Amino acid sequence: MSQRVAFIGVGNMGAGMAANQVKAGRAVTAFDLSSAALDKAVAAGCKPAGSVAEAVADAEVVITMLPAGKHVRQVYEHDILPNAPKGALLIDCSTIDVDSARAVGEMATGFRFGDAPVSGGIMAADAGTLAFMVGCDEADYPAFEAALTPMARVVFHAGALGSGQAAKICNNMLLGVSMLGVCESLALAEKLGLDPTRFFDIASKSSGQCWSLTSYCPWPGPVEAAPSNRGYNGGFLTALMLKDLKLAQEAAAKAGAATPMGAQAEALYQLFDGLGYGQKDFSAMLQLMRGKLDELA
Amino acid sequence: MSQRVAFIGVGNMGAGMAANQVKAGRAVTAFDLSSAALDKAVAAGCKPAGSVAEAVADAEVVITMLPAGKHVRQVYEHDILPNAPKGALLIDCSTIDVDSARAVGEMATGFRFGDAPVSGGIMAADAGTLAFMVGCDEADYPAFEAALTPMARVVFHAGALGSGQAAKICNNMLLGVSMLGVCESLALAEKLGLDPTRFFDIASKSSGQCWSLTSYCPWPGPVEAAPSNRGYNGGFLTALMLKDLKLAQEAAAKAGAATPMGAQAEALYQLFDGLGYGQKDFSAMLQLMRGKLDELA
Amino acid sequence: MSQRVAFIGVGNMGAGMAANQVKAGRAVTAFDLSSAALDKAVAAGCKPAGSVAEAVADAEVVITMLPAGKHVRQVYEHDILPNAPKGALLIDCSTIDVDSARAVGEMATGFRFGDAPVSGGIMAADAGTLAFMVGCDEADYPAFEAALTPMARVVFHAGALGSGQAAKICNNMLLGVSMLGVCESLALAEKLGLDPTRFFDIASKSSGQCWSLTSYCPWPGPVEAAPSNRGYNGGFLTALMLKDLKLAQEAAAKAGAATPMGAQAEALYQLFDGLGYGQKDFSAMLQLMRGKLDELA
Amino acid sequence: MSQRVAFIGVGNMGAGMAANQVKAGRAVTAFDLSSAALDKAVAAGCKPAGSVAEAVADAEVVITMLPAGKHVRQVYEHDILPNAPKGALLIDCSTIDVDSARAVGEMATGFRFGDAPVSGGIMAADAGTLAFMVGCDEADYPAFEAALTPMARVVFHAGALGSGQAAKICNNMLLGVSMLGVCESLALAEKLGLDPTRFFDIASKSSGQCWSLTSYCPWPGPVEAAPSNRGYNGGFLTALMLKDLKLAQEAAAKAGAATPMGAQAEALYQLFDGLGYGQKDFSAMLQLMRGKLDELA
Repeated sequence: MSQRVAFIGVGNMGAGMAANQVKAGRAVTAFDLSSAALDKAVAAGCKPAGSVAEAVADAEVVITMLPAGKHVRQVYEHDILPNAPKGALLIDCSTIDVDSARAVGEMATGFRFGDAPVSGGIMAADAGTLAFMVGCDEADYPAFEAALTPMARVVFHAGALGSGQAAKICNNMLLGVSMLGVCESLALAEKLGLDPTRFFDIASKSSGQCWSLTSYCPWPGPVEAAPSNRGYNGGFLTALMLKDLKLAQEAAAKAGAATPMGAQAEALYQLFDGLGYGQKDFSAMLQLMRGKLDELA
Repeated sequence: MSQRVAFIGVGNMGAGMAANQVKAGRAVTAFDLSSAALDKAVAAGCKPAGSVAEAVADAEVVITMLPAGKHVRQVYEHDILPNAPKGALLIDCSTIDVDSARAVGEMATGFRFGDAPVSGGIMAADAGTLAFMVGCDEADYPAFEAALTPMARVVFHAGALGSGQAAKICNNMLLGVSMLGVCESLALAEKLGLDPTRFFDIASKSSGQCWSLTSYCPWPGPVEAAPSNRGYNGGFLTALMLKDLKLAQEAAAKAGAATPMGAQAEALYQLFDGLGYGQKDFSAMLQLMRGKLDELA
Repeated sequence: MSQRVAFIGVGNMGAGMAANQVKAGRAVTAFDLSSAALDKAVAAGCKPAGSVAEAVADAEVVITMLPAGKHVRQVYEHDILPNAPKGALLIDCSTIDVDSARAVGEMATGFRFGDAPVSGGIMAADAGTLAFMVGCDEADYPAFEAALTPMARVVFHAGALGSGQAAKICNNMLLGVSMLGVCESLALAEKLGLDPTRFFDIASKSSGQCWSLTSYCPWPGPVEAAPSNRGYNGGFLTALMLKDLKLAQEAAAKAGAATPMGAQAEALYQLFDGLGYGQKDFSAMLQLMRGKLDELA
Repeated sequence: MSQRVAFIGVGNMGAGMAANQVKAGRAVTAFDLSSAALDKAVAAGCKPAGSVAEAVADAEVVITMLPAGKHVRQVYEHDILPNAPKGALLIDCSTIDVDSARAVGEMATGFRFGDAPVSGGIMAADAGTLAFMVGCDEADYPAFEAALTPMARVVFHAGALGSGQAAKICNNMLLGVSMLGVCESLALAEKLGLDPTRFFDIASKSSGQCWSLTSYCPWPGPVEAAPSNRGYNGGFLTALMLKDLKLAQEAAAKAGAATPMGAQAEALYQLFDGLGYGQKDFSAMLQLMRGKLDELA
């Protein structure tokens, strides 16, 4: 008999993730506050539920994909923990603050809870090629990995409760910093009369190499799949990068960590978002550095 | 008959480079203001010269490896250009400002001049595994490549005159920025209770991947060859990274390029250098971010 | 008959504040979790209470001076609001996040609540020369002003609920930024061979003039009362400036405000705090900029 | 008989300055590469010269007001020093790099040379209310002061040769940093629902007080004379603030001074200039922070 999965939150990301659980042969019951989202999940083979309580009532695995820490805290406290069967595997795939992840995990006595934020956007959610960073007890990790596999390109065990969120924000802070470094060096190359695509070739094989450059080049041309080749549309939105940078700064402030470059990255993405470019891919920052915002029209 | 090479400046870096020219069967005449440096070059098979003029008198290739733009300008204006045979291949391997490279190239009428700064430290100079970024006329590039090959792991043609220096500082600015991003994310991971080596494993395969992390990890352990495993000694000194970041900022200021992260990187490395850590590898910045300067004693 | 004041939190700051209420002829009932603190308040003429509930039971004015938003939320929700007489004037003088101030104010139906954080340290608290920035209804402001006057050099009405905290963190963010600007310009002057005290004289009368320079000069000498003249001890501690900068960054992140210099100031003070200088006056940052941490031993 | 003054460079700033020398009864001979500028100086009572050599031939005082260090070096080396009478008082009022000022001073053997950059714009130049910061020998200072007085609101002796330029860039770096702090705090106040003019009132009397706020408020309203009240036109142009911040960064790089906030200010003003706002007053940065560039149309 197939494993019973409750999926709470089947929006942009959750839709594809739930569909991949269905494709893996699992019996998925879905819930979303938006009936349009829920209808889409039903079309993908999920069974609809009228409430979170109903969705989780006999679930073996509960997966949540929600916007922010407060939603996760609330739905766990009021809906999931009182209604899910004890012993169920509870997986929060939302990207939220470390404190909320830990607070929910501590509330979840009698359950196996893990924080498992994802890396990768809507296309990866649809394709089942997300990366998961899981914070959970060592002993429970194989169960989390098995539950996540249908949605994943790779699953990492980051460590104990909260470590999934920590890994996500540390990685994305580094990503934000290196993307800005890439944008600035490309803009500087151009101003110095050095062909940016030639610089791409050189830096890709030198000590400046980084994923932001070699897999996601903000200069149109060198990396065909990069959003820079389609008007900086789609991809990883500035608004989402900003959200992650804020989570990183919030965590750093609470933990007493000094992150001058991370702080600067947050400020620059906030500036860019404030200028109205939140819905552009985060590599569009190149055009701010070049003083060419008109190319983002 | 073997090619005649004049090598001006056989200090820390130049010594190994000249020796590799000798090993490649070239007739190398060396000059250095330091007689100790010159003696070492002679021991490696170079013929000593009493002056730059004497060294370049019948050279087919002249290679310079000097500390800063003013030295390069001076030695070319007063010693090399008046004395080297017309048509000789003149290669400046120093890391200097773009303007000086261009000024020297423009003075060098009747010669083939190229700026060809290197990436890689003393060990790479000795081993003949440097990376060269060459700025020169397209037509002359094959000659430059052939001349540099005995000292190189790889030779890039960056573009026209000055492009070699431009490529070097753009790459190293990106390197400085990403290294700081790596240091901050490792320090944040630690404060959040996420094992930094686990973070290394995850980020190395995620969007945070960069050379600073995967080939030069500032956290001791994951990358065996990294300076972090030998007390941050050797490697790429903070003082040299700072020099390159200053060249990048100087070039950006002249060109009117906005480089907020590059500027911040320069300021942080200046702070670190000011605290007395200029002779530590540039990845030692991790310990400033961790508030653990005592680990650098 | 004298006005009845309940004072909750009579620690470093609260002690002097409560004493000044006593001196103004008010009947002050004090409470603190620390019996040592409470004893000190009693010595200054306060009547001790065994609990917050007891302290506020018949108060006309309740003043709270607590460490952080969570303490304020908790003590208001559980102790003050259920026990204070309806209509009482509730004044929170703690420096906390804007959201908590607003949340408490919204809970306080049937009361007149205001957020009234202070500017000035322990000495000003003792001397009754604090500055208060009050967020409250326009109509209630005269009552707040009258209640605060015995502790104040000046009382400002910043605007509606939450505006007191907003004014405090905006002011202190500006203070943190300008202090860093002052430290950097003094350190640069020194390196350029310009006597810092001469620079003080000039900038004090020029467009660089700011309170951080002219009233609090971090270079020993020009401003006699400044902490720089007594080893950077006392004054406004780095740890407290850091707390305020974090509140500012938290508020900016929530509000979507771009504050690149404020973010940088927070990062630099975090770095300084992480190096162990949290208990030094915030002008001690000069010594980090000069690379002279040994002068803070 | 009146004192003979040669004035080299009578453009935007120099025109008014030369006119004030005439008004003080001095015999002014002017030179400028632009004949239109020279005509204007003649209209103000100057005698025209056909060359620098002619202008300085019998001068007692030579005043230069030129765009950059290279112009100053050149005109002193080739035109002034060979032609001016020995013992003449040579005053360079240009804002240039410290090194150039010192280099020219060292060349000027047999003369009394001082660097005396100004603070204040075209209106102050016309009105004779500039501030001068003079770097010169102590013994010569009274002569410099007397020569500058007709053009000045105040004259400061900053110290030995080069100190005038050092004082200017240190002051203006501090100004740039504090202006950004003011812009950010006003933008944050607005987002937090705190009336920016109320914030102005409070901060002006608190520790956030600075000239950028109280004498030059970037928020329209509180300071009537500020450029914010006339569309950010006139005033101290972003392009000129950027020039000074670059001079400060260049000097800091050479001197090995860490100026993280100064570096950030330079980067932000470069970004703003790159977006096309170089000809707006430097307080217009407020609108970038607010994400309201359309208000600068």
